Amino acid sequence: MRTLQWDSRRNGVDLVDQTLLPSESKRTLCSTVDSLVEAIQMLRVRGAPALEAAGAYGVVLAALEAQGDGGRFDALVERVRTARPTAVNLARGVERALEAARRAGGPGKAAEAALAEAERLCDEDVARNRAMGSHGARLLKDGDTVMTHCNAGRLATVDYGTALGVLRGAKEAGKHLKVVACETRPLNQGARLTTYELLEDGFDVTLITDSMAGVVLRSGRVARVVVGADRITRDAVFNKIGTYGLACLAKVHKVPFTVAAPLTTFDLELRARDVPVEERNRSELLWLGSKKNAPDEVRVFNPAFDATPLKLVNSIVTEKGVLQAPWGKAMARVGKWLKQR
Amino acid sequence: MRTLQWDSRRNGVDLVDQTLLPSESKRTLCSTVDSLVEAIQMLRVRGAPALEAAGAYGVVLAALEAQGDGGRFDALVERVRTARPTAVNLARGVERALEAARRAGGPGKAAEAALAEAERLCDEDVARNRAMGSHGARLLKDGDTVMTHCNAGRLATVDYGTALGVLRGAKEAGKHLKVVACETRPLNQGARLTTYELLEDGFDVTLITDSMAGVVLRSGRVARVVVGADRITRDAVFNKIGTYGLACLAKVHKVPFTVAAPLTTFDLELRARDVPVEERNRSELLWLGSKKNAPDEVRVFNPAFDATPLKLVNSIVTEKGVLQAPWGKAMARVGKWLKQR
Repeated sequence: MRTLQWDSRRNGVDLVDQTLLPSESKRTLCSTVDSLVEAIQMLRVRGAPALEAAGAYGVVLAALEAQGDGGRFDALVERVRTARPTAVNLARGVERALEAARRAGGPGKAAEAALAEAERLCDEDVARNRAMGSHGARLLKDGDTVMTHCNAGRLATVDYGTALGVLRGAKEAGKHLKVVACETRPLNQGARLTTYELLEDGFDVTLITDSMAGVVLRSGRVARVVVGADRITRDAVFNKIGTYGLACLAKVHKVPFTVAAPLTTFDLELRARDVPVEERNRSELLWLGSKKNAPDEVRVFNPAFDATPLKLVNSIVTEKGVLQAPWGKAMARVGKWLKQR
Repeated sequence: MRTLQWDSRRNGVDLVDQTLLPSESKRTLCSTVDSLVEAIQMLRVRGAPALEAAGAYGVVLAALEAQGDGGRFDALVERVRTARPTAVNLARGVERALEAARRAGGPGKAAEAALAEAERLCDEDVARNRAMGSHGARLLKDGDTVMTHCNAGRLATVDYGTALGVLRGAKEAGKHLKVVACETRPLNQGARLTTYELLEDGFDVTLITDSMAGVVLRSGRVARVVVGADRITRDAVFNKIGTYGLACLAKVHKVPFTVAAPLTTFDLELRARDVPVEERNRSELLWLGSKKNAPDEVRVFNPAFDATPLKLVNSIVTEKGVLQAPWGKAMARVGKWLKQR
């Protein structure tokens, strides 16, 4: 079952509530813009490609809710678009469904047209991830140990995953892999989600804290680090906080560092310095579940993402193929691909 | 009040229960070897110098409990000595009080003699930490931001601290510092203990997850990383897991990396490869308080310490002065100091 999908009987987005994993595998229905925005902000649904689908479905919800009131529709769409600031894919999904809704010519048909476009977008995501898996699989050998950070998996996409899609691609090609999952503080997507979905698929998974990556990379047992991306600018890969440090440590220990991300993640008009990084709530570090982790009076720095300069990246897997340095040339290729679409 | 001290009225070791911090500031009494070993293993008392004091007090408890039975005394002492494998200081504290007990000549006086030695050891620890603070303070300038990992503070020693003692020394010398504390997964001593004791002393403290160290070091705002040590061999510094990765990241970003540790931490007969690293329970990664962090079926790698090669270390602050590369020469100096004692 897909991570998120339209429930046409109940008119809403049916999605896995990822804040409950791994204890509970439960789905929830977002049938209003409010509930979808809440689900996005609370990270019930997260991951760039899944957010793109959520954005598109959000336009469907907005159209249903606005009932032909154009001003209200625009306001609702805006709420979906700005639910999280750094993820370019969320806005892109909104844009795509919005255009379809506008082309439909008349508020009566807007929801239907947006829904058709959202479904197309979801199907494309799955096809794209499978293509990435097939390209990326060539970077891995039978018996390799791969380290990953955060969750760029099935649960971060409509299905199959980006970074974890590369592992699935290798597995489907008959290669046996071991996976080391970094916990990914403060929200522990690596511990909660990556281990969960990889164990479901029969992978051999070892969980470590983020702080153990250094010694594990030094051990010589890791063949490659593979992560996803939330946004790729001309000069850097934005991904979950900790990716930059991990890329530095991979470089120090001469372990190749690979990013898997669809072309929708690229934003070649921007440089790293142009991208605002979302700072999340301090409570994420002050509490561990219901237990106090630090005194209330402490200052907290809690950026959601960091920027890894391309010079620390060995390869980027896209649905069109694998990119490598020199990055100027590689990005020009991406530019061409983006124009073809 | 000291982190641990002898309660002569109730005949036991009175200590801060650090597993309750920062929610509760509560002291607990260990009046049997059993309860002291439990406190050591559950990390109610932790940190190399505090463990040395705990080891010495453990001999007092063993003497009281054995009531003149030599075989029972030896067995109890052995339980204290082996309560945690990597901390050389625990065994050293045991040895020291044990020798005093043996010199006392007769089981009747063993407890008293061990106690006098344990008290001497505690006083020396505080004096030593103050000396380290005074030497180390010279490495810091007014206005500096210092990053630290784990808790090498007052709570890890009898009082004042090693790494945090250096910060206290600088503060007493009139220098205003900002401190960045790494959370220190999986037991969060940085979040729970370091922030707590530094806020108590009026420092400006910012908490980050371990995975944020890379971007914070890249920002150029950190003047120096200062950490403690659990054991220093001829070639490496053993300290809380994550120290090695942090040292690599400091090197990459050209931020000086300083270790503060008393001479008792040095073990020049050993090399890094000779030291067994304690692997702690998998439950530390599987649970966040009472909340599930990862599925039961996942493998877990959970080493308590790592070894940072001396080539990544810029300076080691001891109570006798500050050591720097070349390390062969510096370690020869340590060897001479150790013989003088």
